[in-house]
Amino acid sequence: MTTSTSGTRPDDARRHNRAVLLRRLHVDGPCTRATLASELGLNRSTIKAVVDGLTESGVVTEAVPTLRSGAGRPSLLVLPEPQSAVVLAVDIRVDQVAMAMVGIGGQILGRHSWNLHRTTRLAGEVITHVAESAQLLRDELAVSELGVGVSVPGVVRRRDGLVHEAPNLGWREVALGERLAAVLGRPTQVGNDAELGALAEHVRGVARDDSDLVYLSADVGVGGGVVAGGRPLRGTGGYVGELGHILVRPGGRDCFCGAQGCWETEVGEPALCRALGLPEDGPRGVLVAELRGLAAVPGRADLLLSDYAGWMAAGLVTVVNMLAPALVVLGDLFAALPPTVVDRIRDEVQRRSLVSRAIGGTRIALSPLGRDGKLVGAAELAFEPVLGTV
Amino acid sequence: MTTSTSGTRPDDARRHNRAVLLRRLHVDGPCTRATLASELGLNRSTIKAVVDGLTESGVVTEAVPTLRSGAGRPSLLVLPEPQSAVVLAVDIRVDQVAMAMVGIGGQILGRHSWNLHRTTRLAGEVITHVAESAQLLRDELAVSELGVGVSVPGVVRRRDGLVHEAPNLGWREVALGERLAAVLGRPTQVGNDAELGALAEHVRGVARDDSDLVYLSADVGVGGGVVAGGRPLRGTGGYVGELGHILVRPGGRDCFCGAQGCWETEVGEPALCRALGLPEDGPRGVLVAELRGLAAVPGRADLLLSDYAGWMAAGLVTVVNMLAPALVVLGDLFAALPPTVVDRIRDEVQRRSLVSRAIGGTRIALSPLGRDGKLVGAAELAFEPVLGTV
Repeated sequence: MTTSTSGTRPDDARRHNRAVLLRRLHVDGPCTRATLASELGLNRSTIKAVVDGLTESGVVTEAVPTLRSGAGRPSLLVLPEPQSAVVLAVDIRVDQVAMAMVGIGGQILGRHSWNLHRTTRLAGEVITHVAESAQLLRDELAVSELGVGVSVPGVVRRRDGLVHEAPNLGWREVALGERLAAVLGRPTQVGNDAELGALAEHVRGVARDDSDLVYLSADVGVGGGVVAGGRPLRGTGGYVGELGHILVRPGGRDCFCGAQGCWETEVGEPALCRALGLPEDGPRGVLVAELRGLAAVPGRADLLLSDYAGWMAAGLVTVVNMLAPALVVLGDLFAALPPTVVDRIRDEVQRRSLVSRAIGGTRIALSPLGRDGKLVGAAELAFEPVLGTV
Repeated sequence: MTTSTSGTRPDDARRHNRAVLLRRLHVDGPCTRATLASELGLNRSTIKAVVDGLTESGVVTEAVPTLRSGAGRPSLLVLPEPQSAVVLAVDIRVDQVAMAMVGIGGQILGRHSWNLHRTTRLAGEVITHVAESAQLLRDELAVSELGVGVSVPGVVRRRDGLVHEAPNLGWREVALGERLAAVLGRPTQVGNDAELGALAEHVRGVARDDSDLVYLSADVGVGGGVVAGGRPLRGTGGYVGELGHILVRPGGRDCFCGAQGCWETEVGEPALCRALGLPEDGPRGVLVAELRGLAAVPGRADLLLSDYAGWMAAGLVTVVNMLAPALVVLGDLFAALPPTVVDRIRDEVQRRSLVSRAIGGTRIALSPLGRDGKLVGAAELAFEPVLGTV
C-alpha cells in the first residue's frame, strides 16, 4: 500500500509521461507535438524529450503534416509505428477462433481464423492450434508480439485466466491463461468476451465519449460487459457478471445454468431462430440473411418479433434500473435486429425504466465494430500492460 | 487532468499522511504510534510529526495504554477526540426523520428524531424541521458540525443533491442538497439511502473486509447499494441504480414506476404484510412483532413465506449473476426475516446462480446495524470530505 507520494522520482515521472503520451497516440491516433502538449498539460520541452526518446527506440516517427495551417514552422506530426509494438489478439467463439496481430495504434497487421466443430472445440485442440497459428503469423509478418489478449465466452477469473465455465464450448475449469502463456511464451491475459466487447466500444467504438455503458451481445449465449465510471465493472475475484443470466421469465425454459427463464434462454440465438420459424441450430448466415430480409418488411418484422422485443426490453429495464448507464450498445447478433424492432425496444425501455427517465434517457445504439468487436477488445486487453513498458 | 506526479511537494505529502492517519483512527479506532507506523508504512518520525500536529489542534489525544506488554517504554495510544470534528447525519425515511451529531471515530454524540405523516412529509416542512433540530443539537451539545450528510429513499443526483424522485415521500425534483446547505450553512452531501446503507456496512458493519458487496433493504420500498472493487458503484450523473426495480415477475403488480412486477412490489413491506395476512399499511411494529413470533414456529414461517422466499431468491439470483458480489447484506425489514426463511433463500440462490457457484458461493448476511444503518452511512458521507481538511 502506497501511503505517501513523496517518494516520486524524476524517473517515475518520465516513465509516466511516456506511457500517457503513448496511450494518447494509441487510442486517438497521430497528432502534433503542440496538440500533445496542450492535451496532456505538459510543456513543450517535456514533450520533446519524451517524443525524442520514443523516436530513438523506433516506437514513433515524426513527419511534416501535409496540411499546413498558418505561416511559420509547422508543428511535427507524431505517428505511432505499428510494427514497433505488436500484440496478439485471440477471439475464441463457439463456432470459430479468430486471431490477429495488432500494432500500436490499433492497426490489424495480419489475421487468421478457423471454424470450430464439436471435435475441434476441445480446449487442448484450441490451444495447440492457437500456438501454431501464432507462429505462422509471426513468420509471415516478421513481428514478435509483446503480449497476448484472449476473449472467451465464459466465466473467467481475470487474475490467472482460469475459465471456470464456458458452457457453449463445453469447457470447465480450463487453466487457459497459464496454458497459453506456456505455449506462446508471452504474458497472456484472458477476459470474458462481453467485457472485452465493452472495452472495444469504449476505446474504439460507439462509446468513446461515455464512461458509463453496458455492452450486450448475443452469440449462442447472451453476455454483457459493463464500464462504470470509466472502469470495467468486476466482482469478487475479478469475475465479470453474467448479464445473460438475469431472470426475466419465472417458470420459463430450463437454462444450462440450473435456473429457468434466464434472459439468455429468451433472447439468445436459438430464441431468435424460434421466433422466426428457423431451426435452432442452423447456420448463423441464414439467420442474419433472414433478419436483413425482414428489415425491409417492418410490419412483418414487428409482428414476428413482438414477444421477442418484449423480453429484450424486460431484461434491458432490469439492466438500466440497476446500473444507470448513459448508453447501451447492442453487439454481434443483436446488431442485426431490424431497425423497427430496435425502436420498439428503445421505446419500451424508456417507458418502463424509472432510472432511464431520471438520467434523461439511456441511449441504445448498435455496435459499429461488427464481428471484430471482441477481437479488438482482446487486443486492448493485451495492450494495457504493454503501453507502460515499451 | 494530472498527467505528472513530479509536482508533489512536501506539503502535499504531509497533508496526505495526516488524512490517511486520521481515516485509520476514524474507521478502526484508537491504536498505538507503533501500530500506525507499521500499518501505514511510514517511519516513526513521520508518525510523530503528524500525531504531534493533530494533538496540537486537539483532534487526537495520547494516553498510556492500560495493558502494557513487555518491558520498556510503552508506545503511546492515539485516540481520536470525538468533539474535535463533528458532522451532522440526517436519515429521512418514509415514516420518520432521524438526526445525529457524530464525532470523529463514529461516536454518536446526540440524536433527535420525529415521525412523518402525510402533512409533515412535504419537503419544505422537513427542511425547516431539520434546520431547527440542528440548532437544538448544536446548543445542547455545544458543538458545531463541519459538514452534513443526508440519506433519502429516492433517486438522487450526487453532484448537487437533487432528489429526482422519492416516490414514497411524494417528492419530485427537490433541490434538497442546495436548500439544506443554505439553511444549515454547511457543506451538505445527499445520498440514496441504500447506497449509504452499503457504505455503513462497508465501514462499520458486517462488510468491513469485503470490497465487493451488495446491500439490500426493505422499508416501504426496496433499495440496494453496491460497492464494487471497494468503491461505490454509480451510473450516469452519479445516479445510483434502483435494485428494487429490477423486473422479477412479468405481468405482476403495477409499480408506481410505470413497470409491472418490480422486485419491490413482490418483496417490499406491503408484500410481506400480504403474505402474513396483515393489513398493508399497518404499523411497522406489528409486522416486526409478527416476524419475531413466526421465527419461533419454523414450519409455519416456511409455509406462509414460501412464495415470498421464492421472489426474494429470484431477485437475488439476478443481482448476484449481474454483479458477482462476495457478500449480500440484508438490512432494515429484511433483517427481521425468520432464520429458516433466510436459509431457504440462501440455498435457492446458491442452487440457481451460476456466478455464486463460480466464485465459491456468495454469502448472505443480516445487517448488524439495525435501524441506524443509513444514519451511520450519512455520517460517513459527511466525513469523507472532512477528514482531508481537519
